[in-house]
Amino acid sequence: MKILVIGAAGMIGRKLVERLARDGALGGAAIAQAHLVDIVAPAAPQEAPFATTTAAVDIGAAYVAPKLIAGEPDVIFLLASIVSGEAESDFDKGYAINLDGARGLFEAIRRRHLASEGRYRPRVLFTSSIAVYGAPFPAVIDDEFFATPLTSYGAQKAISELLLADYSRRGFFDGVGIRLPTICVRPGKPNLAASGFFSNIIREPLAGRAAVLPVSEDVRHWHASPRSAVGFLVHAATMDTARLGARRNLTMPGVSVTVGQQIEALRAVAGEAVVRLIRREADETIMRIVAGWPSNFAARRALDLGFVVEANFEDIIRIHIEDEHGGRIG
Amino acid sequence: MKILVIGAAGMIGRKLVERLARDGALGGAAIAQAHLVDIVAPAAPQEAPFATTTAAVDIGAAYVAPKLIAGEPDVIFLLASIVSGEAESDFDKGYAINLDGARGLFEAIRRRHLASEGRYRPRVLFTSSIAVYGAPFPAVIDDEFFATPLTSYGAQKAISELLLADYSRRGFFDGVGIRLPTICVRPGKPNLAASGFFSNIIREPLAGRAAVLPVSEDVRHWHASPRSAVGFLVHAATMDTARLGARRNLTMPGVSVTVGQQIEALRAVAGEAVVRLIRREADETIMRIVAGWPSNFAARRALDLGFVVEANFEDIIRIHIEDEHGGRIG
Repeated sequence: MKILVIGAAGMIGRKLVERLARDGALGGAAIAQAHLVDIVAPAAPQEAPFATTTAAVDIGAAYVAPKLIAGEPDVIFLLASIVSGEAESDFDKGYAINLDGARGLFEAIRRRHLASEGRYRPRVLFTSSIAVYGAPFPAVIDDEFFATPLTSYGAQKAISELLLADYSRRGFFDGVGIRLPTICVRPGKPNLAASGFFSNIIREPLAGRAAVLPVSEDVRHWHASPRSAVGFLVHAATMDTARLGARRNLTMPGVSVTVGQQIEALRAVAGEAVVRLIRREADETIMRIVAGWPSNFAARRALDLGFVVEANFEDIIRIHIEDEHGGRIG
Repeated sequence: MKILVIGAAGMIGRKLVERLARDGALGGAAIAQAHLVDIVAPAAPQEAPFATTTAAVDIGAAYVAPKLIAGEPDVIFLLASIVSGEAESDFDKGYAINLDGARGLFEAIRRRHLASEGRYRPRVLFTSSIAVYGAPFPAVIDDEFFATPLTSYGAQKAISELLLADYSRRGFFDGVGIRLPTICVRPGKPNLAASGFFSNIIREPLAGRAAVLPVSEDVRHWHASPRSAVGFLVHAATMDTARLGARRNLTMPGVSVTVGQQIEALRAVAGEAVVRLIRREADETIMRIVAGWPSNFAARRALDLGFVVEANFEDIIRIHIEDEHGGRIG
């Protein structure tokens, strides 16, 4: 089996490749070869039981996708995105990568499908986002609530979902779009994303560093661990897609907690001294942005289809400690 | 005020232009000039109180939209579409016109908006379709039900809606997308569209000709007259769009009736002899296609925003008699 990962240098891409290298297989089929690409050359996994090639490519360039598909990968992960803030500040770049990049890939697969008289029909996994939804929301968003993005990033994801569903319905490939919750706890350094604090207030105190909480404790949000995000992708790559019918895009399960509940979970797992490293410092801009985000979903279809997530936020913290601190803190 | 109508040779386009020529104004502003385009050159209205130019253009060609926008029309009607059946049989052409045609227009407006430092910001009216919805449906589809098209045409309309909303949110233009019901009674000859019989069984008997009914009388569907469709467009062109917020695409009001109720209305308006011209002849293919179509909507937002439609199917028939038979039948 041949795998293509587009966006392999990103946080989820790296963790996905680590998991594939550890498993050596996907859905019972041994992985023979993996091609890993991103806008910067991704690192190859250190001890993968399969051949790995890497390349730096820009999926905004029209010539790229046909070259990526020429080797007929069996499973394609499309994880690459311009993030929300940049897609808002650079309209052309956001559409070029998030819409035209996805469409160019889908179209390159279709051309290969047609040229092979239908023989080539890969599985395509696409990471969408809960940013396809826009306020006002019901208290709990169900699987049939409409997509009304309030950012260009969300519009680009919603459009790519529609393309993925139509190309899949027509039989050009076998696609699954997964709407990821906010990934928490994000490893690495604090970043400038408006959502950064959800991870910062856990990751930084666990590492003995202070963190700023810019919103009130009653802000509720929808989370899943990086490990779950990888699990979603692997499950989507191996599931029976006949059960999806024409509805190919799924809101992934998550854990809906308030910031106060996040802090309580941190206290339960790591103790009061760690929690004391959180400093309250209200930020009106971040509060306003976050107020427009969805906070809770009933992801019934994904749960019925076998996608699994943490049971509670304490488990999300424990997974972070296992995966990023070797199981120990302090 | 300068008007641009793209798709002016189509049934709704022609009736819109007739209405504009009759009114001579839009929202209280006199129309100085109208540019009418379609894939074939549209007819200019016979006695318009404004200057009219016409042209045959293909909006699938990238050079066309910037030329159409160069004259800075104040109000732009985008009515042109590849119809559902052709968009399904010719995948490339459907996407080229229904998606790239719309996007190319939106992008040409944005370029002009940016070049004018924000001065140029026209009103854009886009005809979408209830084909953005796909079965299974609730009995009544509300304004927050999700778009899951089951045709490439529906996907292209849903994508264009998302683009229109994002370009409007960013302030590049002031867009309104209107999801038309099935237009009934369509004037002209019977066509091969699967939905054709909804009009055929009214229009043909009223003209003294036989018509075939290929489905059972309990099939329910969502209708509006051609006159209402023009009314929707004129209202969308003149309404206060501040009331729309970020949700720029609206399901238009309609009349939900079964085929049996259509026939009852025809009997009430035109008598038993006319109804006897309808011949039942079941068509399994058409029955299967129609079973996937939505049949009833609660179009509350559009009604709240002042869009109006016929009160019942008898009125739809009477309007057809007024507009196409000079008010007399038999």
